[in-house]
Amino acid sequence: MDDPLSSTFAALADPTRRAILERLAGGDATVGELAEPFAMTLPAISKHLSVLERAGLIAKDRDGQRRHCRITATPLKSATSWLEEYRRHWEANLDHLDAYLTRIQGPASPTSPGAPTTATTATTSHPEDQS
Amino acid sequence: MDDPLSSTFAALADPTRRAILERLAGGDATVGELAEPFAMTLPAISKHLSVLERAGLIAKDRDGQRRHCRITATPLKSATSWLEEYRRHWEANLDHLDAYLTRIQGPASPTSPGAPTTATTATTSHPEDQS
Repeated sequence: MDDPLSSTFAALADPTRRAILERLAGGDATVGELAEPFAMTLPAISKHLSVLERAGLIAKDRDGQRRHCRITATPLKSATSWLEEYRRHWEANLDHLDAYLTRIQGPASPTSPGAPTTATTATTSHPEDQS
Repeated sequence: MDDPLSSTFAALADPTRRAILERLAGGDATVGELAEPFAMTLPAISKHLSVLERAGLIAKDRDGQRRHCRITATPLKSATSWLEEYRRHWEANLDHLDAYLTRIQGPASPTSPGAPTTATTATTSHPEDQS
């Protein structure tokens, strides 16, 4: 888990860390301010902040005793790029499948390019029930 | 790490698992076919596939002895939505900062709405060097 993209996704794999990022998206904050909305100790929050910092998602600026946290954008851009690239591949594959199905079933109605019906074909995954 | 979004990001936090998804984006494959490009044992690949399956990112269809894997889209959509929503928040925050800086520094040149220069302000994070 040493490559930057893996570190980014690993850092995002926690609801508290995502909430911290959402809070920081609204403006810089001190560690104390970030801890406030969570029923967590400062050390627990600091641990989450360290994970975010190691992943390069946030940076800390010292201001005397207080440390301000701010978000940094580059890792999130890489994560978004990967997901978008992946989606492009996957949707192209679905288009091929759709074209194939249309060919073997015969044309039913005029196909509109990029029609959303294409994408729904494979979205019938099992609903997640991870209790 | 039980919520679906955390499971998705955790599953994506590994280069082998991302490569498996990229391969499956090109079409369904058997476990053996998926293992081929990796210098890994079948049990090691199976473990990665289990993580992807638990996160709902792939599904397995039995075809006699062979098991075909295919990707499922819903969790990736949630992950992409979260990143996009977050980026929207964050960019709005940058726009406010930009407007504030323009106000205190005085107008230098006519600002074009949504100019990319705004976004580059905070991208000067430390380059990741996690060797």
